[in-house]
Amino acid sequence: MRICVEKAVFSKILTHQQLLINRRSTTVPILSHILIKAHHSEQGDPLLSVQGTDMEMSLWETEVIKPFQSSGASVVCAHLLYEIVRKIDDQWVTLEGFENHVTIQGGAAEFHLPTLPVEEFPLMETQDLPFELLIDPATLADVIKDTSFCVATEETRYALAGTCFHFREDSQNQLSCNVVATDGHRLALSRLLNIKINESAISSPASLLVIGRRTIQSMLRLLESDSSEEVSFRFSANQVSLQGEKFQFFSRLLIDRFPDYIGAIPKNHVFCVQFDPKELMKSLDRVSMVIEERTRSVKLTFCKTGLVVSANSAQGSAKEVVKISYDGEEFTLIFNVRYLSEICQHARGNVMTMEGTQSQNPVLFQEINRDTLYVLMPISS
Amino acid sequence: MRICVEKAVFSKILTHQQLLINRRSTTVPILSHILIKAHHSEQGDPLLSVQGTDMEMSLWETEVIKPFQSSGASVVCAHLLYEIVRKIDDQWVTLEGFENHVTIQGGAAEFHLPTLPVEEFPLMETQDLPFELLIDPATLADVIKDTSFCVATEETRYALAGTCFHFREDSQNQLSCNVVATDGHRLALSRLLNIKINESAISSPASLLVIGRRTIQSMLRLLESDSSEEVSFRFSANQVSLQGEKFQFFSRLLIDRFPDYIGAIPKNHVFCVQFDPKELMKSLDRVSMVIEERTRSVKLTFCKTGLVVSANSAQGSAKEVVKISYDGEEFTLIFNVRYLSEICQHARGNVMTMEGTQSQNPVLFQEINRDTLYVLMPISS
Repeated sequence: MRICVEKAVFSKILTHQQLLINRRSTTVPILSHILIKAHHSEQGDPLLSVQGTDMEMSLWETEVIKPFQSSGASVVCAHLLYEIVRKIDDQWVTLEGFENHVTIQGGAAEFHLPTLPVEEFPLMETQDLPFELLIDPATLADVIKDTSFCVATEETRYALAGTCFHFREDSQNQLSCNVVATDGHRLALSRLLNIKINESAISSPASLLVIGRRTIQSMLRLLESDSSEEVSFRFSANQVSLQGEKFQFFSRLLIDRFPDYIGAIPKNHVFCVQFDPKELMKSLDRVSMVIEERTRSVKLTFCKTGLVVSANSAQGSAKEVVKISYDGEEFTLIFNVRYLSEICQHARGNVMTMEGTQSQNPVLFQEINRDTLYVLMPISS
Repeated sequence: MRICVEKAVFSKILTHQQLLINRRSTTVPILSHILIKAHHSEQGDPLLSVQGTDMEMSLWETEVIKPFQSSGASVVCAHLLYEIVRKIDDQWVTLEGFENHVTIQGGAAEFHLPTLPVEEFPLMETQDLPFELLIDPATLADVIKDTSFCVATEETRYALAGTCFHFREDSQNQLSCNVVATDGHRLALSRLLNIKINESAISSPASLLVIGRRTIQSMLRLLESDSSEEVSFRFSANQVSLQGEKFQFFSRLLIDRFPDYIGAIPKNHVFCVQFDPKELMKSLDRVSMVIEERTRSVKLTFCKTGLVVSANSAQGSAKEVVKISYDGEEFTLIFNVRYLSEICQHARGNVMTMEGTQSQNPVLFQEINRDTLYVLMPISS
């Protein structure tokens, strides 16, 4: 193999592989490597393919490159190749494969990297996935961003360590998908409405997928850097794939069941106020300076003068008033300041509603005209 | 005390205090605090003074502010006040002192911070320092930047844990100051020529000062953010002070003697080559990707085709040629890649000379027309 690839193109492909490759896989060295292949398509186009896997996920990316004489394949250390290509001081990078090493050339620099046997490179077993959703990458990226920050990070909550995609028939008898994440203290839900998928999906076991945290992050990066008009999101009950013009991504799913999230969304409310999420976020940021790391709790007092955001600790106290229009009885709720702030941070506009029951029940946050909602549990005082 | 201070002015003063204040001084809580004082100058100008100390260093900064009614003083947590003022959403900040707390107001926010007794605030003992050097802050900042990266960071090398200021009569019979730092592997020397100080300084014990790492870093920050035309650098055998228009900084000195650095500068050479330090730095950066963390060694081969920069490890190998004009016998030197790279990084222009003896002797690096030199010891192969 001897190919000459544009640095920017090669660099982008290698950046994607960093998402799933374990940089220091010392127990299974080959998992820190990627497979580089120079070959021709059926139409005879000269192609560079790069494949990497961590045995949970697998990413295959292909790019048409300049014509080359000799095809072939090599298995190279992923992060070293990425660093080298990134730092090459030239527009073009030449890669040549030999029996036990590759050489990389560009500008005045020349590198030799050892390789591992191509036949030992692990290929993840992938299935033929029965259901397909064709979707604009920006829309899919948005629902992931709006929800995935609520995924549980505690190792013990394995069932909550993923984002749930729930394909169902909604109240308008349309096929839709609820994208949900929760860590037990808060919940985020975003909806993909009026989607086109095979109707049998909603009655199959694949109607509810739980996609692990690392997989969803990798998907998000791929979607954000993809320029296709549509990507294909395919799934079965235990695998999911994402396919764009130039890449193919596979991942296993988490097999745990997801909790009943629909029951967790409050249906009734006693109060409902509108507020500017950006304003509240800035107030929380200031007030949180006196909050101790251990408690992280902030007090919201709803009264006729506005929403009083306050906190108290041995370090000092802070108080600030945020505009709301509220005419009822004064009451107080206590929240985890980070959770509340993250909800505000994910708002797009400058009007959000907060509704609840003035006591220790979950509070619902929504934006006007958006299919996203957040539920946050107050802390008992 | 009740004062109203411009946020930008207050914020800058508090940023300086962060240089010396230990954020979490849990054993002596007052050392994480600063003294805030509202008073009037002899001319009747309304003043804000802020003072902080870690008992090694002390910084006092004064600013003329808007007229105020009530003067006074409070001792407040340094980092909390800094964070609060920085995040206040207003051009002005109001600070009011009470018996056991202060309130800080700005925008919609109000903070209460507990205070400590003013009479318990530690004042560092300062002397009348006999010698004074008046100097442009940018020039002093430059010699510090050019040398202080070579200060030893290992705790065991206490005698080398500072930058040496050596006041002396140079070969032109002019008074000058050598500013020197070394960690035993490398040495940096920068000269302040033709300086005006009292001649008795060079024969006193104060002719050789060793200024500790933290002190020199704090001085550098103060110099970089100072707009005075001249600062006063004063010293005795065990204290140093820096005084600008608005601040006064004191520090103790390290009492250890400094090694004979003049003897460490090579006098003779067998080879002398010119190179572009920026080019060499970029090559080192690329080649160092295959260098293992443990050895950090890079090989320089001087030959007729140029300077071959190369490295080898289990991870792979790298080679790159940097332009030099050299016509002698081929030879090789091995250096610590980081040390070599840092010397290149501190060059101002694009011509540097490297001279030495082709073997395990120190190598001298200099720039044309600059009073700075570096000495670097090769690693034995």
